[in-house]
Order: sequence, then structure tokens, then C-alpha cells
Amino acid sequence: MSGNRFGTLFQYQSWGESHGPAIGCVVDGVPPLISLTEKDIQKYLDQRKPGQNRYTTQRREADRVQILSGVFEGKTTGTPISLIIFNEDVKSKDYADIKNKFRPGHADFTYMEKYGIRDYRVGGRSSARETACRVAAGAIARKILEHEIGKKVNIRAAVVQIGKKEINRKNWDWKQVSKNPFFSPDAKSVDAFGTYLDSVRKKGSSAGALIEVHASGIPAGLGAPVYDKLDADLAKALMSINAVKAVELGAEFAAVELAGEQNADEIRSGKKFLSNNAGGILGGISTGQDIVARVAFKPTSSILTPVRTIDTKGKNTEIVTKGRHDPCVGIRGTPIVEAMVACVLADHWLRHKAQCR
Amino acid sequence: MSGNRFGTLFQYQSWGESHGPAIGCVVDGVPPLISLTEKDIQKYLDQRKPGQNRYTTQRREADRVQILSGVFEGKTTGTPISLIIFNEDVKSKDYADIKNKFRPGHADFTYMEKYGIRDYRVGGRSSARETACRVAAGAIARKILEHEIGKKVNIRAAVVQIGKKEINRKNWDWKQVSKNPFFSPDAKSVDAFGTYLDSVRKKGSSAGALIEVHASGIPAGLGAPVYDKLDADLAKALMSINAVKAVELGAEFAAVELAGEQNADEIRSGKKFLSNNAGGILGGISTGQDIVARVAFKPTSSILTPVRTIDTKGKNTEIVTKGRHDPCVGIRGTPIVEAMVACVLADHWLRHKAQCR
Amino acid sequence: MSGNRFGTLFQYQSWGESHGPAIGCVVDGVPPLISLTEKDIQKYLDQRKPGQNRYTTQRREADRVQILSGVFEGKTTGTPISLIIFNEDVKSKDYADIKNKFRPGHADFTYMEKYGIRDYRVGGRSSARETACRVAAGAIARKILEHEIGKKVNIRAAVVQIGKKEINRKNWDWKQVSKNPFFSPDAKSVDAFGTYLDSVRKKGSSAGALIEVHASGIPAGLGAPVYDKLDADLAKALMSINAVKAVELGAEFAAVELAGEQNADEIRSGKKFLSNNAGGILGGISTGQDIVARVAFKPTSSILTPVRTIDTKGKNTEIVTKGRHDPCVGIRGTPIVEAMVACVLADHWLRHKAQCR
Amino acid sequence: MSGNRFGTLFQYQSWGESHGPAIGCVVDGVPPLISLTEKDIQKYLDQRKPGQNRYTTQRREADRVQILSGVFEGKTTGTPISLIIFNEDVKSKDYADIKNKFRPGHADFTYMEKYGIRDYRVGGRSSARETACRVAAGAIARKILEHEIGKKVNIRAAVVQIGKKEINRKNWDWKQVSKNPFFSPDAKSVDAFGTYLDSVRKKGSSAGALIEVHASGIPAGLGAPVYDKLDADLAKALMSINAVKAVELGAEFAAVELAGEQNADEIRSGKKFLSNNAGGILGGISTGQDIVARVAFKPTSSILTPVRTIDTKGKNTEIVTKGRHDPCVGIRGTPIVEAMVACVLADHWLRHKAQCR
Repeated sequence: MSGNRFGTLFQYQSWGESHGPAIGCVVDGVPPLISLTEKDIQKYLDQRKPGQNRYTTQRREADRVQILSGVFEGKTTGTPISLIIFNEDVKSKDYADIKNKFRPGHADFTYMEKYGIRDYRVGGRSSARETACRVAAGAIARKILEHEIGKKVNIRAAVVQIGKKEINRKNWDWKQVSKNPFFSPDAKSVDAFGTYLDSVRKKGSSAGALIEVHASGIPAGLGAPVYDKLDADLAKALMSINAVKAVELGAEFAAVELAGEQNADEIRSGKKFLSNNAGGILGGISTGQDIVARVAFKPTSSILTPVRTIDTKGKNTEIVTKGRHDPCVGIRGTPIVEAMVACVLADHWLRHKAQCR
Repeated sequence: MSGNRFGTLFQYQSWGESHGPAIGCVVDGVPPLISLTEKDIQKYLDQRKPGQNRYTTQRREADRVQILSGVFEGKTTGTPISLIIFNEDVKSKDYADIKNKFRPGHADFTYMEKYGIRDYRVGGRSSARETACRVAAGAIARKILEHEIGKKVNIRAAVVQIGKKEINRKNWDWKQVSKNPFFSPDAKSVDAFGTYLDSVRKKGSSAGALIEVHASGIPAGLGAPVYDKLDADLAKALMSINAVKAVELGAEFAAVELAGEQNADEIRSGKKFLSNNAGGILGGISTGQDIVARVAFKPTSSILTPVRTIDTKGKNTEIVTKGRHDPCVGIRGTPIVEAMVACVLADHWLRHKAQCR
Repeated sequence: MSGNRFGTLFQYQSWGESHGPAIGCVVDGVPPLISLTEKDIQKYLDQRKPGQNRYTTQRREADRVQILSGVFEGKTTGTPISLIIFNEDVKSKDYADIKNKFRPGHADFTYMEKYGIRDYRVGGRSSARETACRVAAGAIARKILEHEIGKKVNIRAAVVQIGKKEINRKNWDWKQVSKNPFFSPDAKSVDAFGTYLDSVRKKGSSAGALIEVHASGIPAGLGAPVYDKLDADLAKALMSINAVKAVELGAEFAAVELAGEQNADEIRSGKKFLSNNAGGILGGISTGQDIVARVAFKPTSSILTPVRTIDTKGKNTEIVTKGRHDPCVGIRGTPIVEAMVACVLADHWLRHKAQCR
Repeated sequence: MSGNRFGTLFQYQSWGESHGPAIGCVVDGVPPLISLTEKDIQKYLDQRKPGQNRYTTQRREADRVQILSGVFEGKTTGTPISLIIFNEDVKSKDYADIKNKFRPGHADFTYMEKYGIRDYRVGGRSSARETACRVAAGAIARKILEHEIGKKVNIRAAVVQIGKKEINRKNWDWKQVSKNPFFSPDAKSVDAFGTYLDSVRKKGSSAGALIEVHASGIPAGLGAPVYDKLDADLAKALMSINAVKAVELGAEFAAVELAGEQNADEIRSGKKFLSNNAGGILGGISTGQDIVARVAFKPTSSILTPVRTIDTKGKNTEIVTKGRHDPCVGIRGTPIVEAMVACVLADHWLRHKAQCR
């Protein structure tokens, strides 16, 4: 109930602060007899890992995950899987200035208003460092989906826009995503993204990003009516990612301007749909088509440009957030977006099994 | 767990089908000693009520709510409040054709895939008729917020776009919203909306809509970190409304294109913010500013234009959805959007009381 | 969270007051395609129904249940099943005296302490009238178990002690239970129970009772480790019944005095156990043996003998609870105990399906 | 949903196996600004710690707890508190024999039936080692109760019976409990308990125990109606402890034999009750009197006497459980019983705050 927990049947409890001794999560509800090693998780953490190129924060974290429970002789046992990642690159100078000032765009002010106390060490609990737990849990969610539904399940995300620069969708090639630092599916976009972000960084500014995610191989029938619609749960999971503040399924903000007959996804025998404006979900339940969503990340709030704020005593002041930060947090959002989609689908898969199989 | 329930501490269980004997909900977790009458709920139901003008469905429902429990001598007792609304205008000819065909854009196909059975009486459980329960529960949520926080709490929504027609934000006047059939805050938009919808209706087509909601008077500190962020819960609640498929908080899809320093909401003494790009929420917790969100409704899927589909045996066919339908479901979405925002805020208010007060 | 809801996957939300217009519950999470009629529920309600003989309250309630949703053409659809029972025999003189006084042994005092308001109409929400909802939900739980596990599932309870009078276990015959007003499995106990309760009633006193419940045909593997052990969930469900305050599984209070080797249930090939001291549950998970529990009901708190208490202003006074009451509430507890066991098992069955099948 | 989690608002997720690298739990929902150090938790763990005298298992575990998150500068921050205890005395010879055989009275058989896999290292997840997490979480629950309600809150348990040996209640002195290895409140019982347990140990047998717990200083009004009654939640929490299979509140199994007027706890001005047969709870809500419960522990299932069982292939065999075991697990149950009561009360306190304050 305190918001540090994801899911209902596939669920995990996350814990830890950016500059505390460790972060981790306990993943529960996992079916037994699924092969699982630390490697299965590490490969996704490595995608999210900071410090890999000049477009991400220079904080050096190996993000080495350890499994402390719930796996026996290489297989899940059905009991809770405790994962831990020790924090390594923790420098107290990181928070010299922010101890007494609220950084605009961050949770410093609101945590203080809510709790009357705040771990001022670079965001504490509100730091994006927590997203490593999401990625780790997502790796287990993928294992469940592959084990129970099949290898055809494929959840992939890509950056389609950084600041005002968009990719050319005609060049879309999923294989490119892992080959450039921007998670872009358009090889031709890479230079433009690089040049743009270099200029943003030099100005001490930051940029937003738009990520698109596709889940394929998902059977029809996942989701629930009314309040836990599959799209509603996806919206919550995606909106809960740090810096995300907008989510759309299928064609949907654009759909406002379509006529009903344009927006209708007509159906043909063989359960085939002639289009997918609905993003693979009707009435909150999967249609068997690809599930498609788009997620907007705001520009990083930590910037070198001075901004006006107040200190913890309420007096006017200014702040420059030095530290080590991504100029565009959205980029590293890609593996996180994939992970959250995997977690939502694993949860709804177990829910579907309980009631309908 | 089956998706027919909203909330955690303020919560309600909804039930009922479009063409069954009744619909209703049980609202639970309501603090005791709050004055509550059927009138307090009815006034919001009357806003959502169909058949009030030519731009909404011609189904005639009084939507008369009865309180069956949980209120004693005019006050809440802290026990479950059972609400019931009997269905009146139920015609079996409404579903003659759709019994054997799946309507594109509707949940007919996915319910069958999930459950292997479907109440084919005009959407059954997936019908927008269920939203009456949301509005009723929302009325009680408002009572809680007003009783515990104060009369300054004000949750208001308005239609800002229908199809390709937008309002002029310079003319924004909340008082106008209740004075025209489109819930528009711009008196000058009314003629254009009317003309546009008339043409849509004549073509047997339908239109989407964009609704904006503002919650003011909400104290700082509501919300929870990480997974139950206030914006994440708002996204889920709004995305769960029938026909909604996109949600943005504050300036957020546009924020992708802003520079970090443009997007930062600077703070001044007195806990004042110089802008509100964040939509009143930072790190998932309310800042004390207005909470602002926008919600996209897709065009009504029930249209007179024939569309291709399959029948329940999987064979190709066509369907024309005659029945009685709103040409633009987004319009009547306004009281529903307000209700969901009220429900999310009441829930987080109780959660905040539990842990932090 | 407010305590009016049972279960996790098989779940129901109960509502209503003893002397309000109706009581009811919404049963959710029920798998689709199970045959269900009002008759299936009514037969269990008829067992619990008051006014059937001189050993139960003379309140006349037909307890006629109506299904308002979730069933279509005789089958469950997977959506919420709303059940309603209108209150008929509601006399305002029932609560003339108790309006201003707290009845010892009842919840009058504690509801006032908790909520600051209380529906003084004969217990309001705390009345045993609510148990009709339990029995109704239990009937649906049985249908799930029979549909998914098979007809061999059999959940039966019997009264084994009233006041100081015990049955002779050698005479145990399940067929007798429905043939006498005491739900006794020992035909020879009936006269003694009758004579005893007549004398209790004449003295204006009341008696306690002990009920034993057996669930057979339950497969091994139901239950969950650690906190939601099957026996823990049974204990909670049974202890939540009005007037129950003690629960034991298997031989267990007696087991304190056994040696380890006496208490061990030895196992033989074919997964047979040589004894069942564990009551069919080990480590919180069913063994495939009969699940056996015993439940103690305290003597009815409403008695004709005057007892000392305080009024709502805190002043000393006395009260005689006239009204219409069971001299031994435990007797009618039998169908309620069965229902709660059925509900717990249905819930754990669905949970088992989600994770382990 | 998988049973490794306790509570609703005060909640914790437990994880870890008996012979894995570590065990731990994540405590969530804790209000901010409560002083908390590892010492506050360690003192209760030290009471439960094995190997302290010859009446408990000789496994040597320091049970040193570490706080990994959620506490900043000595105070809780409102974010999850992750606790870890590394396992030290882990010998693989402990499980040489039990790898291929199911120990009667243990969860070996049922885990295999449920999950199809089992961590055979001395119980794995089902080991009583997990109860260290309960005690650690209970220490935090106590801090919440003391911080929010006051120092008068006092939760104390004692052993009142071992095997057939009972204490003399006239000698009851709480101060004695910490002064003898049996947690007995009767100094005169100590010799008899010692002699008895020595003889049990020599015979290779084991004994059960009865524990009584009192919670004082708890205000009236905690608890919830109907399904989450305070006594129902206590029953579940206590029944979930390893080896517990019976729970009674107040006078209750005995109450079956009382007359209604004997069982009624009469009330006098000043909200005083003349007796406490109800165990401090009426209608599921605390009365302000002491909350009193009794809990039966079965005799330890691990005994040196050979017992018949089957192996993992289903063939008949015998087993002698050598290893290191408590001859009476109930004794060390005392701090665990206290901890569970503290956890239930902390949870209901937060729930009460949410709805009624």
C-alpha cells in the first residue's frame, strides 16, 4: 500500500536508496520449475547500466545482481526470489549542495512535504537508480512468459524521438536498436541524435524522448474488464517510471481526429485484424495482435543551467545540479519500458490462468 | 483481482450488465460521520445521463440511484455503501444483430476469447453503462475530500477538442461547461462543435474527443513513491474508462520537445511554483499546485457505416451497428473523468492519513 | 481494507445492515461457464434460515436470494455476481431499548468507540444477519470446486457439543445432520440437546456450541507457505464468524499433550497417511487427506437475564435483551462454517491454478 | 498472493531458505520519523536465537540483522526497510538423509505435491528459520505502536504448558519470563519443565506447548467488522506460525460450556469491564481491555525415534531425523507469538488512522 510494490499475482517488492548500501527487490508468485540464473537477469541490467557512453551519466556501477533465494539447483521453486545489487560508486560530494535545496523537477520538495524527512543523497528513494529493480524483475517476467506461453513472446522498445528529432519510420529495423547508444531503430538517425545531444550537453541543458514499445506473441484473452484493463495497467506501469508523464496505446492521441470508420480495426476470418489502431487491446483485453504503446519522457530535471528554487527553510535561492546525469533520461528508459510491459503481461497471464484456464 | 474493483483504501466494487436488471456498486472504506444523501450522488449522475440532447444516445434511463446500506440517519457509518440503479430502457431488439457478430472496436471478440461466453446484450459488462457506477462512487469520493480537506477542493473537467475542432483556450470559462451540450469551456466553440457533430451523425460516422481535467485545492503530499505514484494511479484510472486510450499529465507529450530549463517548474518562497509543466505532481506526489491531465477518447466504435468483421463461427461478414449510440462518447466522458480523478484523490488521501498523519 | 470483503482471487464484497432495506454481496473472480441458478444458492440459505423451529430466533425471513448480474443463460460469465436478499421482518420495536444502551457481549460499544456513530437497529452491520451473505457466497464457492475439481468434493459440518453436552462420536452418521434441528450427527444426542436447550431458554440464558467440519475430496497442494497457510486462512475465515472465538485444526489443542512420535502422521506408499492429527494440512498445504477443524461458538450474548452495562452517555444501567434471538447461535453456525471452508478452498484453488498449473 | 507477505498497511515481504545464503524481509508502510536502529531489532532476535541452552537446537546462528534501506540518520523515512540476516551455520550433512525422503509432520511432502520441486536443505522455505523475519518485523511494529500510541503499549507472551505440565497461574509473574529457558511466568515450574524436557530428549521424542499472550495499552476501536475482525486477523497470524494449529481468544474454548450470563462481560461507567471473557475484542474491534489469546504448538516433528514414511519415488521406508532440533519448538515460539501480535496491531492501527481519525 505504500507504493513500493508492483503487481498482483506476479509481484515484486522493491527497496533501496540511490546512495545507501544496496538496492534490491523480492519477486514473488513466480511459477516453479523455470530455469533461472543470474545471467538471465544480468543481460538486461547491462543494457540499462550507466556509464557506457558519453550520452549517459558517468556514475560507474557494475550493477551486478545476486540471487539470494527462491532458486534451487538452477530452477525456480515457487518461493520468493530475493535479488540484491550493491551500490558501488557512491560519492558524498554528489549531495553537498542538494542537502539544503529543493531541485526543481525532482521529488525533493514533495518527499519533504509528505514525510517531513528526506534522504537527500541524490534523490534517495526517488532516484532513477531504483529502475534497476524494474529491469531485474522484468527479466524474470520474460522468463515466465517464455516458459508458459512460448519463445514467440517478444517485447521490444525503441527510441523514436529525442527532443525535436524524430526517426524515419520507413527505416525501422529492430536489429539496429542494440547497435547504437540511442536505442534507435533507424540507423540513419544516429548521427543526428548524436549531434543534437552533444549540443544539448554543451549548453548545460537536457532533452526529452519518446519511446515506442511492441509486445508480440501475446495470446488473445489477457487483461480484465473495467478497472484492471490491460491498457490501464500498462498505463500505470509506464507512467510510474521516473520522468514519464504521458502514455498512449495504439494510435490513440491521433485517434481523436479520426472518423469512427477509419479507427475501426476490421476483422477477417482467422481472427486477423486489418489494422491495429487499438494497439492490440479491446475492452481491456488483448486481441492477439501486437500490443503497441508510446511513452513520453520529460527532459532530465538535473541540468547545469541555474534555476530558481527555495532552500529547506523556504528562502529563495538558486541551484545548479552538477553531479553526474544523463542529458536525456529517456534513452536509458528503453530497457525499463520493456521490463514494465513484461511485468504487466506476466501478471495478467497468471491472473488469466487463475480464472479462465 | 478480476478487475471490477477500484482503489485500495477508498474502494468500490462495481457490478452489472448493460441490459441486465440493474447495475450498482459497493463503496467501502468511507470514513464515518459524513452527511450523505441520494441527492448528493444524483446530481452527478444527471450530468452523465443519456438522452438529454441530440448529441447523445437516445436510450432513456432515469439513472435513479438508491442507497441500500452504510448510511444511517443521513450520515455515513463507516460500513459499506451499497448503491443500485435499475435498468429501465432495455430493448431486446438492440442486440438482435450483434448476438452472432463481433463488432469491431468493441470488446465482443476479446470477451469471447477470454471467457468462452459473452453476454451479447449490447456489450453486457463491457458497456459504457457501467460508468454510471464510476460517477456515483466519484460523488462519494468528493464528499470525503470536502469533508476531510475542505470545500476548496474542486475537480472540474471540460471538452477541449472534438474531432479536429479545438476550443480557443483564451475563451476558457469554467461556468460555460454546464451551459452547453458539449461540456465546452469556450462559449464560442459551441456552434462549431454542433455543426461538426451534426455532419458526423449524418454520415453515420463518429468522432473522438479530448478532455482536460483540473483538480485544485489538493494539498501537497498526496501520492506514493515508485509504483503507486499519483500520476500513475491517475493514468490507470483514466485509461480504464471505456474508449480512452491516451493520458498525459501536465505539458507532457509536448514536453518531449522542451529543453530541461524550459520544463523545470521553478519554485519561490511560499511554496509557489512559477509554472506547472509537471501537472501538479513531482516524484509521484502532489505539489499543492493544480493537478492537470488530458485524456483522449477514441471515436465511438458503434457506427452506421458498414464495417467488415467475422461472426461467432469465424466466418467473414459485415456489421452495421444500429442501436442507440453517442456519435462522440467523449462528450459524456466529462463527468466520468472528474469522478475517476476524485476517486484516485480520495484513495490517496486515506493512504496518506494512514502513514503520514 | 475496511473488512467487509473476503478472499483474494475468489472474493466477495458483503454489505447491508440487519434492519436496513436489504443485505447482499458481490461475488467476483468466478470462472466462466459454470451452471448457476438461484436455486443452487437458495438450498443452503434455507438451512441457515431463522424461524424454522423453537431453538432458533423467531424472526421470519424468507431469505430469498436474487441474482442481479454475472450469470447469462444459466451460466457464469466471469463477471461479478451480485446477490441481493431483501429484509422483510423488520420491527422498529426490536431496538427501542438498545438505542441508548450498549449490550454486553455485542459490538455496540466497540462500534461507537471506533466510528463515533452506530446503526442501533439490532446490531446493524455487526448482526449475524450478515452471515446469510457468507452462505450465499459459499454456495458459489462449492460450485467452483465441484466444477473444477469434481463431484467428490464434499464439505460437511456438524454440531458436536452444546453447552456441556457432547455427542457420542461412535454414533457419528453424516446423514443424521439434516434430520434434526441441532445439526447433530448423533441421532441419540437429539433428545438430550433438546431438553438441555429448553431449560436454557426457560432460564433466559443461552449456551455455546462446538462445531466440527470435514472437507473431503480436496487434492494435495492447495495452500501457500508462510503467511497464507491454508490452516491460517481457515482460522481467519472461521474466527471471523460472529460469536466464534476459538479454532483448532486436526487434533491440535490435544496435541500439546502428545509425544512427537504419537503426533506424527506416518506415510505409506500410495500417498496414504496412517493418521490425520495434522487435520489434512502440513506446512500450510493440503495433504490430500480430509481437512478437519473444530470451531467454538460462545453462548449467545442476547439473553433475558438482566446484565449490568452503561448507556451511551456512560452512565451505569442494566439491560435485558428481549427481541428475538437464538438461545444457541452455534447451531445455525453449521451451514456458515461449511460456507467459509468452501470459500477458503475455492480461493486457494484459484491461487494454486495461477502459480502451479 | 503467494503467501510470503504479511499485512495490509503495515506489511512485510519475507524471503529466504534455511540453508541458503541469507534470509530477510522488507518492511513497508512504516510511518516516517520514528527512531530505529539495528539494536532495536536485535534485542528481540536475541530472544529467539537458537543454541542458547540445551533445550533448543544446537545450530549456532548469530542472527545479526542489518538494515539496508529505509532509515536515514537514525530515523525511518517512510520508504521500505530492507532487513537481511546472513545464514552462518549451514552444514550440508544436515540434509543427507532427507534429500530423498519425506519427513512426516513436515512440509516435505506437500511442497513436492504443490510445486514439483523442493529445496530439501532442511525444510528450505518451510523451515522455522523464517520466523526470525517475523521477530524482526515485529520489533518495528512495536516501535510504530509505541511511537504513535505511547509507551504503555506492552505485548508479552509466556509458556503456560509443556507437554502435560502446566504452570500454576497463581504464581504468574511477568518478570520471571526472561529469567528461565522456558519463558515461564511461574518460577516454581522451571524445575519440572526442565526434568520433563530432559526425559523427552533422552527418549528421542518431543513435546508440545501452550503459549499465552497479553497485549495491554491498546486503545478501543482497533479492528474491522466482518471479515478482518481483529480476532480473525490474530488467529490467522498466530496460526501461520510453524507448528501452531490452534488459537483461542479470551476464555473461548471453555466458553462453550458457560451460560450466557456467565460469559457476558458486564460494563461499568468509565468504560470498565467487570470481566474479560471476550479477550479484549467485541465484534472484531478492541474494547480497550487487555487482548488475551492462547496458542497451541504441536510437538516438534523432527525426532530421533524412527517413523515410517515414503521416499521421493513413493516407496515405503523409515526416517530418523538426526540434525539439530528443538525438543519443544513451542518454547522459542514465545517471541514469535509476541511479534505476530505486534504486527497485527500495528496493521490495524494504521487502518484505523486511515478511516476513522
